[in-house]
Amino acid sequence: MSSVTGNKLKLSIFGESHGEAIGCVLDGLPAGLALDFEKIYLDMARRAPGKDKTATPRLEKDVPHILSGVLDGVTTGAPLAMMIENTNTRSADYSKTAQVPRPGHSDYPAYVKYSGHNDVRGGGHFSGRLTAPLVFAGAVAKQLLAQQGVTVGAHIRRIGSVCDMPFDKLKVNAATLNELTDGRFSVLDRGAEAKMREEIETYRAKQDSIGGEIECAAVGLPAGIGGNMLDTLEGELAKLLFGIPAIKGVQFGLGFGFSEACASQVNDEYEIRDGRVALLANNNGGILGGISTGAPLIVSVAVKPTPSISQPQRSVNLATMENETLTVQGRHDPCIVPRAVPAVEAAVALVLADFMC
Amino acid sequence: MSSVTGNKLKLSIFGESHGEAIGCVLDGLPAGLALDFEKIYLDMARRAPGKDKTATPRLEKDVPHILSGVLDGVTTGAPLAMMIENTNTRSADYSKTAQVPRPGHSDYPAYVKYSGHNDVRGGGHFSGRLTAPLVFAGAVAKQLLAQQGVTVGAHIRRIGSVCDMPFDKLKVNAATLNELTDGRFSVLDRGAEAKMREEIETYRAKQDSIGGEIECAAVGLPAGIGGNMLDTLEGELAKLLFGIPAIKGVQFGLGFGFSEACASQVNDEYEIRDGRVALLANNNGGILGGISTGAPLIVSVAVKPTPSISQPQRSVNLATMENETLTVQGRHDPCIVPRAVPAVEAAVALVLADFMC
Amino acid sequence: MSSVTGNKLKLSIFGESHGEAIGCVLDGLPAGLALDFEKIYLDMARRAPGKDKTATPRLEKDVPHILSGVLDGVTTGAPLAMMIENTNTRSADYSKTAQVPRPGHSDYPAYVKYSGHNDVRGGGHFSGRLTAPLVFAGAVAKQLLAQQGVTVGAHIRRIGSVCDMPFDKLKVNAATLNELTDGRFSVLDRGAEAKMREEIETYRAKQDSIGGEIECAAVGLPAGIGGNMLDTLEGELAKLLFGIPAIKGVQFGLGFGFSEACASQVNDEYEIRDGRVALLANNNGGILGGISTGAPLIVSVAVKPTPSISQPQRSVNLATMENETLTVQGRHDPCIVPRAVPAVEAAVALVLADFMC
Amino acid sequence: MSSVTGNKLKLSIFGESHGEAIGCVLDGLPAGLALDFEKIYLDMARRAPGKDKTATPRLEKDVPHILSGVLDGVTTGAPLAMMIENTNTRSADYSKTAQVPRPGHSDYPAYVKYSGHNDVRGGGHFSGRLTAPLVFAGAVAKQLLAQQGVTVGAHIRRIGSVCDMPFDKLKVNAATLNELTDGRFSVLDRGAEAKMREEIETYRAKQDSIGGEIECAAVGLPAGIGGNMLDTLEGELAKLLFGIPAIKGVQFGLGFGFSEACASQVNDEYEIRDGRVALLANNNGGILGGISTGAPLIVSVAVKPTPSISQPQRSVNLATMENETLTVQGRHDPCIVPRAVPAVEAAVALVLADFMC
Repeated sequence: MSSVTGNKLKLSIFGESHGEAIGCVLDGLPAGLALDFEKIYLDMARRAPGKDKTATPRLEKDVPHILSGVLDGVTTGAPLAMMIENTNTRSADYSKTAQVPRPGHSDYPAYVKYSGHNDVRGGGHFSGRLTAPLVFAGAVAKQLLAQQGVTVGAHIRRIGSVCDMPFDKLKVNAATLNELTDGRFSVLDRGAEAKMREEIETYRAKQDSIGGEIECAAVGLPAGIGGNMLDTLEGELAKLLFGIPAIKGVQFGLGFGFSEACASQVNDEYEIRDGRVALLANNNGGILGGISTGAPLIVSVAVKPTPSISQPQRSVNLATMENETLTVQGRHDPCIVPRAVPAVEAAVALVLADFMC
Repeated sequence: MSSVTGNKLKLSIFGESHGEAIGCVLDGLPAGLALDFEKIYLDMARRAPGKDKTATPRLEKDVPHILSGVLDGVTTGAPLAMMIENTNTRSADYSKTAQVPRPGHSDYPAYVKYSGHNDVRGGGHFSGRLTAPLVFAGAVAKQLLAQQGVTVGAHIRRIGSVCDMPFDKLKVNAATLNELTDGRFSVLDRGAEAKMREEIETYRAKQDSIGGEIECAAVGLPAGIGGNMLDTLEGELAKLLFGIPAIKGVQFGLGFGFSEACASQVNDEYEIRDGRVALLANNNGGILGGISTGAPLIVSVAVKPTPSISQPQRSVNLATMENETLTVQGRHDPCIVPRAVPAVEAAVALVLADFMC
Repeated sequence: MSSVTGNKLKLSIFGESHGEAIGCVLDGLPAGLALDFEKIYLDMARRAPGKDKTATPRLEKDVPHILSGVLDGVTTGAPLAMMIENTNTRSADYSKTAQVPRPGHSDYPAYVKYSGHNDVRGGGHFSGRLTAPLVFAGAVAKQLLAQQGVTVGAHIRRIGSVCDMPFDKLKVNAATLNELTDGRFSVLDRGAEAKMREEIETYRAKQDSIGGEIECAAVGLPAGIGGNMLDTLEGELAKLLFGIPAIKGVQFGLGFGFSEACASQVNDEYEIRDGRVALLANNNGGILGGISTGAPLIVSVAVKPTPSISQPQRSVNLATMENETLTVQGRHDPCIVPRAVPAVEAAVALVLADFMC
Repeated sequence: MSSVTGNKLKLSIFGESHGEAIGCVLDGLPAGLALDFEKIYLDMARRAPGKDKTATPRLEKDVPHILSGVLDGVTTGAPLAMMIENTNTRSADYSKTAQVPRPGHSDYPAYVKYSGHNDVRGGGHFSGRLTAPLVFAGAVAKQLLAQQGVTVGAHIRRIGSVCDMPFDKLKVNAATLNELTDGRFSVLDRGAEAKMREEIETYRAKQDSIGGEIECAAVGLPAGIGGNMLDTLEGELAKLLFGIPAIKGVQFGLGFGFSEACASQVNDEYEIRDGRVALLANNNGGILGGISTGAPLIVSVAVKPTPSISQPQRSVNLATMENETLTVQGRHDPCIVPRAVPAVEAAVALVLADFMC
C-alpha cells in the first residue's frame, strides 16, 4: 500500500505540501527519448496556482529539477528522478489543523492512520500540490505516447451549473486535443469560459467552492491494448485517476448513462470502412472487455469542491475531544477543476504508456 | 498485465466460459480461518443464472471444488485454489462469433489483442461467468472481514427507469446489509422489486436488454484504512470493480453529484459523540484522501445493458472483411444487474480484506 | 508475500502434497503459442519420482490437466491453468508429523507461521512435490524461449564427493543442453553417472541422504536482457531458484570462486570476432551489472540432502513440549538432486521468459 | 523491470554516479518512527570511499538530504525521500568509456540494453555509488527492526587468501553484531585485519584488485517469518543482495557446503530448552522452507574483485568495431569488500523489515 504504481513504467511520488521538496521517480522509461522540456513546463504551468482569480494566490515557481535519468535532454534508461523544492509556504496558516481536522479533507483519517505523526501543513502528502510531480511524469508519458501516435487531452466538462459541450466520442481528434492543451482555459465551446469563470467567482465571493467534471480523451490508440480480467484498461486508469485528490467518480463512455440505456440503442456496431474495421458509435468510450477498440478513449471524472473554505464549519479538537468551530485560514482555490485538467491527462497518459511501452 | 491482483491478499482468476473449468487462486489468507461454506454457496447462488426469468436459462451447478488451502474446513495458509468444472455448455451457439464480433462485447478488441487465438465461445475469459470465482473469493473475504466486524452488502439502485431508494449514507447498518444478501432480490424498498422485474420483462420481450446501477456499502470499517497517494482505497476498489464485465462507472458517496455541489453543502462536518469523533454527514462515502473515515463506505457502479441481444445488428466478418448483419443466438440475460450484485460485493470485500489482513 | 511471482509472466503455484490437487496459473503468455505437450511430459517425467532406486518409490502419474488458456493445443492468451490430482498418497505415514517436527524440514517454522493450521501431510505446500507445477510452467516457458533461439539445460555438477565436469562457460551450446534434457541421467561426463548412482546407493543403504550441486546454462540469450539496479537478472533468477525446496545457495559464473580471485585473472575481456563483440572468457556467467552479456548464462545451485531420513533424530513434541526421538517413516529420496534438475531449468526458463516476453 | 522492490516496504533507488544526485524513496514505513540520524550517518560513513588506502581516494561528503517523510526527526508515514548531491566528480576520466567497454563492468551490456544512451560516467546507474542510498534505506530499516528486537550485522569473511573466523551459527548475538558495526574494520578475529589490509595492499601495488566474501547475521528474528513457495525469505533476500554490484553468489547457512553433506550430519535437530523449542544446530542458517526458524539468520555473499584496474586489458571500440587495448584511468578500490559490508547489512535489513512491518 503505497505511493508506487505501474507495471512496466513504475511511478513513485513523494513529498509533503510544506516539506522540503516534492517529486517523483519514473522507472522503466526507454533510453533514448529526447524530452521536449517546453512541453513539460507548459503542462506544469497549466496546473500551477496563482495564474488568475480562479485559483489560489499561492505563488510557486514549480521548477522541476532533474536528478537523474536524463543526460543532455535524452533519457538514459536509468530511473528518471525529479524534485521541486518547496519555497513559498506559509506554515503558520495551518497551525491549528494538527488538532482540528478540516471537514472534507484527509486530516482526520490521516490522523488516525498515521497516529498523528503525519505532516498536516497544507495537507502534507495529501495536498493537491502532489499533483505537480504527477503532471510532470504525465508530460513525459505524453511524449512517449506521441512517438506511437497517441494524443491525450482533456477539457472542463462542467463547473457547477455551467456545462461545456461533450467530446464527439467518435470523431474527437488530435487537433482538437492539442488546442485544448495549449495553455488556454480548457473548454471546447469557447463561450463556456466566461460563464464558468463567473460561476467560480460567485462561489469565491461567498467564501465557498464549487465542483465540476473533467472529460479526457486519447486518440490514436490502436485496438488491442489492455490486460486480462483483473488488469483491465479501465481498472488501471481508474486506479491512478482516484489518486488525484478530489476525484470521486470515474466513468467511461456513457458511464452512468448506461444505467438507463438499452442495448439496442447503445451497442457500438461495426462496419468496414476503407478496408478496416470501424465503429459506428462509441458509447463504450473506446474500451470493451478492458481492451481498447481503436475508437477514441473517453473517460470522465467527478471533481468535488475544494473542501477548504473560509466559512465557519463544525469540527472537533482531537486533543481535547471537544467540539469546535473551525474557520479555515490560508489561500484556497474556489474551484480546483481548471488546475486538475492536466492532472487527469497525466494519469491517463501514464497508464496508456505503461500498457504500450 | 494480467488476471492477478492484490497486495497482501493476491487473487488470480482463470478460465474461459466454455473451457474445461474456471476458478481462482487466493493467496495470502491467514491460516486458521474456519470457512462457512453455506454462506459461500449462498453468494454463488445469488450470482448463478437460471433462477428466474430475469436471467439466462443456462443452468449451471457451479459447485466450487476446493483444490488446496483448506483442510477440514479451515484455511491452512497455503494458497486457496478453487475450480468449477464447466458442464452445461452449448458451444455450437457461438460458431459464428469467431469471425463476426458481437457489438458491445470484447470480441473485436480481444481478437486483435490475441491475434484471433482467444477462445471466443461464450466470450471466453471475458465472460460474465468469470465472476463466479470472483464471487467465491469475495465470499471468503467477507468471512475474513466479519471477524473484524466489517459487513458488506449491496442492492440494485436502479434498473432502467426504475429506482430503489438509496442507502442512508450515514446510518446504513449491518442488519440492513445482511437482509439484502440473504438470497432475495436485493432492494431496500421491497415495492421496487415488482417494478424492476416488470422493466426487465419489457426488454426481454423486445429481445433487448437494459442497464442499471448497483450501490454497495461496507459498515464497521474503522477509520484509517488506506494507502498513500498512489494506493488509495478508492483506486484499489475501482480497479477490481472495473474487472467485472459490464461495469462502466464507479463513484464514491455523492460521486458525480459532487460536480454540481458547493463545499459548504457537502463537506462532512464532525462532532464528538459518545466520546468519539463522528461525522455529521457522509457525502464522501466513507473515504477522504483515499483513507477510510469510519463512516459507512458507499460506492456505486454503472452496469451497462448486456450486449447480447437477439435483434439483428450491424457487424463485420473479420475473415472476409465484409459487412455482415449479426443476429446473436444463444441464451442471454435481459438484465445482468441482479446477478452482478454479489460480484460487486465480492470486489469490495476482497479489496477491504487486502487492506486489513 | 505469496506463491505468486513474475512481472509480465506471472506464476501462481498452489497445492499441498497430500491435498486434492496441485497446480499452477501462468498468466501473461502470448496468444498463439502452439504447445508441444510431449516435451512438457518429458520434463515432468524427468522430475517424477519412482523411476529408479535413486528416487522415492512413491508412484505418481502426474498427468497435467489443462483447465484453461489452451484451445486445440494453442495458447489463447487467457491465464493458463493446470492441475494435477493427487491420487497416490499415504497420509497415515505422516500422522505424527503434526506434533513432532522433522529436523531440516519446514515443519516447525510452518507450524509457527500458520499457528498449526498448515497441512503437514507430506510437507503440505512445502513439499518437493510442488515443483511439479513449476516444472510444467518451466516447460511452457522453454517453448516460448525456443521461439527466440534460447535453450536452457542443466546437469548434476556434484553428488556428495562425486563431480561431473563443469560446463565450458564460454562454449557450451544448444546441442549439449538438448542432450542433457532428453530424459537421461543429466551429466556431461557419462562416466560420472555410475559413480553418482553408487554414491546415492551408499547413503540409501545407510538410511541417510546426500546433497549435491546443479549447474544450469542458457544459450542463445542476446546481450542487453535485464533490469535496473533492483531488478537484476541475477536477483530475479535467485528469487525463483530459492523457491525450490532444498536449494540453499545460488551463484553465477565463478560465484564463490570470485572471493579468491583477482581482477586481472577474472575480468572477461572483449574482442571483435566476425564483426561482432565477443567475450574472451565468461567468468561472470553471462551477466554483468544484472544484464546479459550475450555469453552463455551460467548459474549453479547448492542442493541440501533430503532431510527425511529413517535414522532416529532428536526432536520435540509441540503438543506436550517434551523432547522426543523421531524416526521418520514413509518413502523418501536418498538424493533429490537428479529430480531437481528440471526444476532448476524451469526456474531459469520462467525468469528469462518473463524478461523476454 | 526496474529499480523498485519490496512488498509492503517499497524501495526505489535513483541516480547515476556522475549525474546531479543519487537517492531513494522508501515507501510504507510506519509513521512515528523516531530516527537516530547519527546511526544512519555511521553506516553511510562505513560505506563511504576515501577513508584509507583500501579504498578509492575519491572524497565524498555523502550528506543525505531528507526531502520528505520525516518531520522533526520522526517519520510521517508519507514516502521517505532522500537525495545525495554529487559534487566531487571527475567526468573527464571516463571520456573513453563510452566507446570502449571496461571488462568485467556493466558497460557493454548496458550499452546494448540502453542503445548507447546510458550515462557511462563512473558506471552511471550501475556504479557502486548507488549503494549509498541502499545503505541509507537499510539504516532506517535497521531502526525499524531494532524496535522488534532484531539486530543485523556483517563481517568480512574472506579477502583473497585471508579468512576471518566464521560466525558461530547458533550462538552469534547482538553484542557481537553491534561491535562489528561500530565503524571499525569488520572482522571477528581482530588479528585478521592486518593480514587483510596487507592482502589488499599487495593487489593495489600490482594495479590489480581482489575479491572476498561477506557473512551477515540477523539475530532476534522470531520463528515464522516468511512467505509461501514463491515468496521465500531466502528468495527475497537474494533478490535484493544481487542488486549490490559485484555480488555473484548468495548462500544460507552451510550453503554450497550442503552439496557434500549427508542429512544425518546437517539436519538441525530440536530440543526443549527453558520451555521453548530450540535448535541444536543451525546449518540451515535460520531458514527452513523459506521461513525463519528462530535461530540466527546466516547468509554469506561472494564479492568479485573490482573490475576497474589500471593494467592494460583487451577490449573493443564500439564505434569503430575494432579491437583496442584499454587502460582504465581514474581512482579505484583495490578491494571493494570492506565498503560492501554495510550494503549487505542494508539489503538484509530491508527485506526483514518488509516481512515484519
